[in-house]
Amino acid sequence: MQDRSERIEHDLLGDLAVPNEVYYGVHTLRALINFPITGIPISTWPNLINALAYVKEAAAIANCELRLLPEHKMKAIVHACQQIREGIAHDQFVVDVIQGGAGTSTNMNANEVIANLALEHLGHKRGDYAVLHPNEDVNLGQSTNDVYPTALKIATYMGIAQLVDAMGVLRASFERKAVEFRDDLKMGRTQLQDAVPMTLGQEFSTFAVMLDEDQERLREASQLICEINLGATAIGTGINTSPDYAPLVCRHLASVTGIPVTTSPNLVEATQDVGSFVQLSGVLKRVAVKLSKVCNDLRLLSSGPRAGLGEINLPPVQAGSSIMPGKVNPVIPEVVNQIAFEVIGNDVTVSFAAEAGQLQLNAFEPVIAHSLFKSVAHLRAGCLTLASRCVDGITANRDRLRSLVENSIGIVTALNPYIGYTNATQVAQEALVSGRGVAEIVIERGLLTRAQLEDILKPTMLTQPRHNLPLA
Amino acid sequence: MQDRSERIEHDLLGDLAVPNEVYYGVHTLRALINFPITGIPISTWPNLINALAYVKEAAAIANCELRLLPEHKMKAIVHACQQIREGIAHDQFVVDVIQGGAGTSTNMNANEVIANLALEHLGHKRGDYAVLHPNEDVNLGQSTNDVYPTALKIATYMGIAQLVDAMGVLRASFERKAVEFRDDLKMGRTQLQDAVPMTLGQEFSTFAVMLDEDQERLREASQLICEINLGATAIGTGINTSPDYAPLVCRHLASVTGIPVTTSPNLVEATQDVGSFVQLSGVLKRVAVKLSKVCNDLRLLSSGPRAGLGEINLPPVQAGSSIMPGKVNPVIPEVVNQIAFEVIGNDVTVSFAAEAGQLQLNAFEPVIAHSLFKSVAHLRAGCLTLASRCVDGITANRDRLRSLVENSIGIVTALNPYIGYTNATQVAQEALVSGRGVAEIVIERGLLTRAQLEDILKPTMLTQPRHNLPLA
Amino acid sequence: MQDRSERIEHDLLGDLAVPNEVYYGVHTLRALINFPITGIPISTWPNLINALAYVKEAAAIANCELRLLPEHKMKAIVHACQQIREGIAHDQFVVDVIQGGAGTSTNMNANEVIANLALEHLGHKRGDYAVLHPNEDVNLGQSTNDVYPTALKIATYMGIAQLVDAMGVLRASFERKAVEFRDDLKMGRTQLQDAVPMTLGQEFSTFAVMLDEDQERLREASQLICEINLGATAIGTGINTSPDYAPLVCRHLASVTGIPVTTSPNLVEATQDVGSFVQLSGVLKRVAVKLSKVCNDLRLLSSGPRAGLGEINLPPVQAGSSIMPGKVNPVIPEVVNQIAFEVIGNDVTVSFAAEAGQLQLNAFEPVIAHSLFKSVAHLRAGCLTLASRCVDGITANRDRLRSLVENSIGIVTALNPYIGYTNATQVAQEALVSGRGVAEIVIERGLLTRAQLEDILKPTMLTQPRHNLPLA
Amino acid sequence: MQDRSERIEHDLLGDLAVPNEVYYGVHTLRALINFPITGIPISTWPNLINALAYVKEAAAIANCELRLLPEHKMKAIVHACQQIREGIAHDQFVVDVIQGGAGTSTNMNANEVIANLALEHLGHKRGDYAVLHPNEDVNLGQSTNDVYPTALKIATYMGIAQLVDAMGVLRASFERKAVEFRDDLKMGRTQLQDAVPMTLGQEFSTFAVMLDEDQERLREASQLICEINLGATAIGTGINTSPDYAPLVCRHLASVTGIPVTTSPNLVEATQDVGSFVQLSGVLKRVAVKLSKVCNDLRLLSSGPRAGLGEINLPPVQAGSSIMPGKVNPVIPEVVNQIAFEVIGNDVTVSFAAEAGQLQLNAFEPVIAHSLFKSVAHLRAGCLTLASRCVDGITANRDRLRSLVENSIGIVTALNPYIGYTNATQVAQEALVSGRGVAEIVIERGLLTRAQLEDILKPTMLTQPRHNLPLA
Repeated sequence: MQDRSERIEHDLLGDLAVPNEVYYGVHTLRALINFPITGIPISTWPNLINALAYVKEAAAIANCELRLLPEHKMKAIVHACQQIREGIAHDQFVVDVIQGGAGTSTNMNANEVIANLALEHLGHKRGDYAVLHPNEDVNLGQSTNDVYPTALKIATYMGIAQLVDAMGVLRASFERKAVEFRDDLKMGRTQLQDAVPMTLGQEFSTFAVMLDEDQERLREASQLICEINLGATAIGTGINTSPDYAPLVCRHLASVTGIPVTTSPNLVEATQDVGSFVQLSGVLKRVAVKLSKVCNDLRLLSSGPRAGLGEINLPPVQAGSSIMPGKVNPVIPEVVNQIAFEVIGNDVTVSFAAEAGQLQLNAFEPVIAHSLFKSVAHLRAGCLTLASRCVDGITANRDRLRSLVENSIGIVTALNPYIGYTNATQVAQEALVSGRGVAEIVIERGLLTRAQLEDILKPTMLTQPRHNLPLA
Repeated sequence: MQDRSERIEHDLLGDLAVPNEVYYGVHTLRALINFPITGIPISTWPNLINALAYVKEAAAIANCELRLLPEHKMKAIVHACQQIREGIAHDQFVVDVIQGGAGTSTNMNANEVIANLALEHLGHKRGDYAVLHPNEDVNLGQSTNDVYPTALKIATYMGIAQLVDAMGVLRASFERKAVEFRDDLKMGRTQLQDAVPMTLGQEFSTFAVMLDEDQERLREASQLICEINLGATAIGTGINTSPDYAPLVCRHLASVTGIPVTTSPNLVEATQDVGSFVQLSGVLKRVAVKLSKVCNDLRLLSSGPRAGLGEINLPPVQAGSSIMPGKVNPVIPEVVNQIAFEVIGNDVTVSFAAEAGQLQLNAFEPVIAHSLFKSVAHLRAGCLTLASRCVDGITANRDRLRSLVENSIGIVTALNPYIGYTNATQVAQEALVSGRGVAEIVIERGLLTRAQLEDILKPTMLTQPRHNLPLA
Repeated sequence: MQDRSERIEHDLLGDLAVPNEVYYGVHTLRALINFPITGIPISTWPNLINALAYVKEAAAIANCELRLLPEHKMKAIVHACQQIREGIAHDQFVVDVIQGGAGTSTNMNANEVIANLALEHLGHKRGDYAVLHPNEDVNLGQSTNDVYPTALKIATYMGIAQLVDAMGVLRASFERKAVEFRDDLKMGRTQLQDAVPMTLGQEFSTFAVMLDEDQERLREASQLICEINLGATAIGTGINTSPDYAPLVCRHLASVTGIPVTTSPNLVEATQDVGSFVQLSGVLKRVAVKLSKVCNDLRLLSSGPRAGLGEINLPPVQAGSSIMPGKVNPVIPEVVNQIAFEVIGNDVTVSFAAEAGQLQLNAFEPVIAHSLFKSVAHLRAGCLTLASRCVDGITANRDRLRSLVENSIGIVTALNPYIGYTNATQVAQEALVSGRGVAEIVIERGLLTRAQLEDILKPTMLTQPRHNLPLA
Repeated sequence: MQDRSERIEHDLLGDLAVPNEVYYGVHTLRALINFPITGIPISTWPNLINALAYVKEAAAIANCELRLLPEHKMKAIVHACQQIREGIAHDQFVVDVIQGGAGTSTNMNANEVIANLALEHLGHKRGDYAVLHPNEDVNLGQSTNDVYPTALKIATYMGIAQLVDAMGVLRASFERKAVEFRDDLKMGRTQLQDAVPMTLGQEFSTFAVMLDEDQERLREASQLICEINLGATAIGTGINTSPDYAPLVCRHLASVTGIPVTTSPNLVEATQDVGSFVQLSGVLKRVAVKLSKVCNDLRLLSSGPRAGLGEINLPPVQAGSSIMPGKVNPVIPEVVNQIAFEVIGNDVTVSFAAEAGQLQLNAFEPVIAHSLFKSVAHLRAGCLTLASRCVDGITANRDRLRSLVENSIGIVTALNPYIGYTNATQVAQEALVSGRGVAEIVIERGLLTRAQLEDILKPTMLTQPRHNLPLA
């Protein structure tokens, strides 16, 4: 006898009791049993759930227009999809993020939840699939193999937009600092050795420019993932669809999402190809690599307080040590470094999963998706945290910056055009050995007068090209 | 006015209101604000929480024996640690798994929870740190820089043991199949081309042997992480400890955990070195690579049902397609493949984090830990799932296996010692072009008699070395 | 006494005897001693040597126009650069491809060889640097830190163009096969399980389309590396240059190379940033991943000859085994797979080197360059080899392709719109268990008439969308 | 008509003209045509060529003892193998390091060169294979699938031994510096922030200890690759061998090489498994990661000369800049960093190649081998260069080291046991804000007397555990 709190559902393996209170069905339940891997459900990625709801809505509308789906079913499905996007029933998306089956379980989870929400809306009981069926109605004219990658692309597009915004926040933070520090002369360093002077503002504006470029690269990569394969069905041949379906569903998807999706010109290729995800992952890795470099620099420039470079101060945000009193550590850059390391590792995971695709499908898109979603979400969190908890509060140690320039040997480079590389080398070597200043040695050797020197070494002249170089 | 549901705690940044119902304190709260990265709390890894409790217990006992900690405090701390290991208060370990500060926040989270549990046990209010202090008592003689890596090692050791057990389950499953299939002759394949005969039992026993070897490698790597740096304190010089402390706390830690930990001979080195984690990650990658190869083979051998190799059948565990009726996919091997790809990516993350260590410490151990814990836990889940949901139910298509051998050209290799490589090559080529069988061509060419052929091609003779090879 | 076959040169470390017959000088010789790492000289990459010659030529012309370099020196330098691009003296570029110093040794190698070629042209002896100096004349207004990355970009741009051409050759080869196989119906496979029919032509056209896309992505990445930092000098502040220099030298470089280079808007950023190399490496990885997938498919489809899928035949290009007579292996796809694995590894190397940049410079550009050059050159070789030694000679096993479709269960999918997913599932299950054909079961069950079936299963209807689907 | 400078050889593809002066034959020539990939011949790795000669010698002796090969052939083959190991004919090993065919071309290259050397020794012409045959005699009882992996293992074992020696040289160099700097007190740093004092000798001894550990790990990994599969032939079933052959050839191989090789207990597994290479690659990656960390530290500690940490000086080995006079860069650590990055990338290549193995063989061992050989050789070169061109010449800036400790706030940690963490934190904060010294603040606050302070801060007491800690 069946428990009244359960309903019986059926699939090719037979009957299975599904708790009555859940909106998902037999296929989702099988997946729950089959994939007890990470304990992380797909609902962790709301963009994905919403994207699935967008795809199903667009498909229902298109099918209705093609007279393949009755209008009342279409309306019920559309209503369910909108409910989901309002946040209702996200907790019903329970399949593990790492799952076999090329996303079939995710797609069936969506089909079942939408079907039962729609049934409810139509006044029927959950599981009354004779009225409205997860496969025959919600999934009509679709296959996991076109729904799932399309949903991933929509979700990724939305995630990238959020990341680009967060990078904008961080970029603005660096830009404000670049202005604040624009007159602070300091030593530039190459290969960790003292090089030539620059301003701290130039250093910080570099960070902003890097982010600006990376935002642009992400936007480009975002465009590439707008090409979808909806209408491909099982392997790209469009079996069981009308020739009018693919363009129609694409138009509706663009309309409901506001994302400029287009249908791939070759759906067989598009169904098996994950190249745009690989490319996007590569760009995310680029972002990570550069963000990590920026954090390395922040940690280096703020090293100290007394036995380091000590050029800038990061705002203290927590006690740094359980044993060393008063120690404050660069914990925010450190956490961003670690996000970067994770993203770089994720990229390798994506490469492996992409390379493992076989024949007409890549069965490993779930781990590609999970990796990308992690990278996007954690980079976004890192940018926001870095901006608000660190960069915004950075201050400069102006006295130290100035004295390091004044005592440096590196300013000798500016004398090259006047005394030649060979003479300059000798001056630099004497300064290093003797501990004396470059200026006094140059004057002592009669290479330049004090007035000439002062002109050449004027701070504003050292940090940009100059007009009156001596002619040949 | 302070809310009565809060208490005020203090650190070097000033006062902060802590909800009264939580066991953690100001340091943990700062970390919660600073690291809103993944949303995954450290309590996701129970081995880590338990390991921290072991370390704190051993330290308290050692300090008490050295008369640096009063007995009543020691007992309260030990009681708290045991409570934690019983599962109480795991939910109080709330810091994000990806965190800056080299694990300080994790250590402080432990110090605070233990202090407040101990205070409760002693009949005091939470936050009454004048009675028993998170830093001065729970963390006495310790630093994050020795506590945290030691706890990671304990946790990893426990995790590896669980993984090795799961691999044993999978290995046993393959071994049962190797016995079941021991007489099923089949074609071996190299480079996906038909090679020479073997048994399906040999094929499955290979998978078991691979796992056996990898279990051994994991056990070895496990031994390497038994070398701890407790007593190193801040940078390995043991500042603020007694010379007797390091050996004493190690002995107690071994005793409470049952793990054969030893103190590293050079604590300065041990404090900054994460080599044993890198090595372990490399071994986990090895396990992943091989497990993935096994799953690739299972998917290949079960390809079909009619247009593939079709040699074996995986048990169906869910419907394979939302559009293709009756399709059943190898979803369990597929999920294990994806776990493997994740583990390989994690290894790159670990490499990056390890390489980024600077001077006396590696600040990026949190992401190393999280990566390792994921790899260990997901591989374990993968092994158990693969065994119970797939391998246990595999069946062989005996007719097909036999007919592929009988029709093969590859058996010509067995004739080499009798007719020579050059003759054998010609026979093989004729068979390929004509579609005829090897045996009839050999007889037709008068290279061997039918009786000789039958002797040479006896199934049991084909799958092992043979005695009576023709002498030179 | 100095050997007459040597000349003495001088640098900041003192005197060093340089063999008279070589064109390089003391700086190059120091580097030879310092970097005995791989034994592979930078001349292995002719594009790099030519690129250096382009940069030096453009700089000399610009400096002359700015009246910073006398005309006779400019002409001698330009002559030397042109000689180098004609292939003269490539063997004088001897520094190891993996070198410290951020490329300084490569730049100095170029400066010295060009100076000595120029001196020779002017009728002077090698080493007569008072007449024309490697640093003060050939390197005038330059720094390794702008010359080297600019030369890498020029070299990479040229290499990518060659790779894109080779990909075009391979694409054309696949396109010819797509036409040849356009009518050959076959089973498509997803997750290695029989899916629905398609044509072999569709399968091969997929490979062509993938390459087409990847060519486009490479061209885009190529555009990104056209942004150079020439004029940045040491750290991007343009110290020791005239404000007119950067635009002028860029214009001349574009003119001599024919490559649309532009000057980066922020030279401080551009001097330390290797983001465009990381991005390019990511795109090369994408190409590698997909090429590897294609090769995996070719190997799978040609598996056999009798115990595999056996759908296509790769042309035999060498004996496959030292023991198995007549065995022929897919050696060409296998070598391309390995190139891909190398490229993916190179990408990780590039990521590490990029992340390790510090402050105003990335000191690790040499290994970035070497990695990219390897990836580009080997992928190019792989594409050309795959086209000419493999794809061009592929043939189809038409009988086998057809019979696999006819016996398949997968065609049941096409019946979905007519008999429903649930009925179709039951038919598929019966077919699988009984070994019978789908058509006869459908008719027997009275689900469709034979005439209906024949219409639905018409081959040309199975591989594309169809108009007259049953309405709801 | 045949050119007299050529001979005609034959394989399954037909006739091919081979230049008479070469020792290799038709199979090698086909491979040269098929694999024009890197331009790097396998002779680049002499250990591999010698290893092949060892394997062929051991096989010939074993076959002779089993009376499968006549004695005169055996002697001629053994002679040829010894000639090869003396360096004769290494230039005849011409196949590309990246090759398809699972190493068949390398094996056939060896078979052909050995056959022709043996024929010459027997007084016959090259190509007279009726007398002594590359396949039927030199390759007797063997397959590429057991010869090739066995040779890789022998070659790798020899390479690792050389690497371990080089690491010993570097370790000794660090050890000498550890002694030299044993009394130089300095600030330790964690997370780039000033921590507590240590000695420079402790810092350098850490580097030595790291190397010592890594040597041990390499030796262990070396043991794992001593397990060979010789006797497995095609797929591990030992087809075409006598049961006595495998143990016999192993004994002879151990005897001629002096390497403790053993026969794997399961040859089917051993033939397809590349786990020991993956593991070894992981250990090489560990070595690389740690060596890179050491180089990062050396570059950081020597940063300056005036605007950096400036604690140590690396010996200048070349001019550092083409534009900045007198600049000297840490070029030797930089080159070692880049080697490390390459090794880490190689490890990913190895992972990919290993995972791609299918069924009874891994066809991608050539790229595994090439990657490992590069890693081993370049790490070796890096260690030797780092020792002789850098570490041996490092000097300490003693005054700076001392003054950084004296001015530090970090020494406050040593006061914890006496004044408590909370008081110490307040002292540290006041020191930081006011710029004053820790000692004067402590005394001013009456926390300790000057005498107590002097006792606690005695240098020798700061860098190790201490006995008389205050009891609770």
